[in-house]
Amino acid sequence: MSTGMDEARAKLLEYRASIDNLDAALIHILAERFRCTKAVGALKAAYKMPAADPEREKQQIARLRRLADESRLDPDFAEKLLTFITREVIRHHEAIADQHSANNGG
Amino acid sequence: MSTGMDEARAKLLEYRASIDNLDAALIHILAERFRCTKAVGALKAAYKMPAADPEREKQQIARLRRLADESRLDPDFAEKLLTFITREVIRHHEAIADQHSANNGG
Repeated sequence: MSTGMDEARAKLLEYRASIDNLDAALIHILAERFRCTKAVGALKAAYKMPAADPEREKQQIARLRRLADESRLDPDFAEKLLTFITREVIRHHEAIADQHSANNGG
Repeated sequence: MSTGMDEARAKLLEYRASIDNLDAALIHILAERFRCTKAVGALKAAYKMPAADPEREKQQIARLRRLADESRLDPDFAEKLLTFITREVIRHHEAIADQHSANNGG
């Protein structure tokens, strides 16, 4: 059983190498996504557009759930992830709005 | 100001197209990551390896924080994201372990 265990251990290291590569990809994609959402936040603050857009959010959720389903990811997990990311986006937008109104004297 | 507003609106749609593409990439990378972690779960269950590996987890957190920092993503957010994903991985592993012990008669 020792060879079997050695093989299992080697397989585990292979999977971990893939997980590490996928995690690096996740981080970089998220960094780029936040660059986009920060630009959106600055644009909305500059043009006094409403921060929230419920119709857009509904479409995003429906689309992500469909994509998740197609790629055999739990759609509930995909929706929870979007909520998790959106909370961070709102935090950034509030910071941008605060800075914007500070720059404009209050 | 109407032309400025039209341009702002057009820019917003451009950013949203990027966000949608990045979200699709996120979903597919996560789907592949869960394929890997499910395979790890099955391997660990089959070879009765311990489910948790605190040393590996410490390395993963440190690495993700470093990658986040390099790509100007908040390292705290990256760490929270890993925790969020890991909770889902544990849920999968428990399901795999339950199925494995059910297949082996309890």
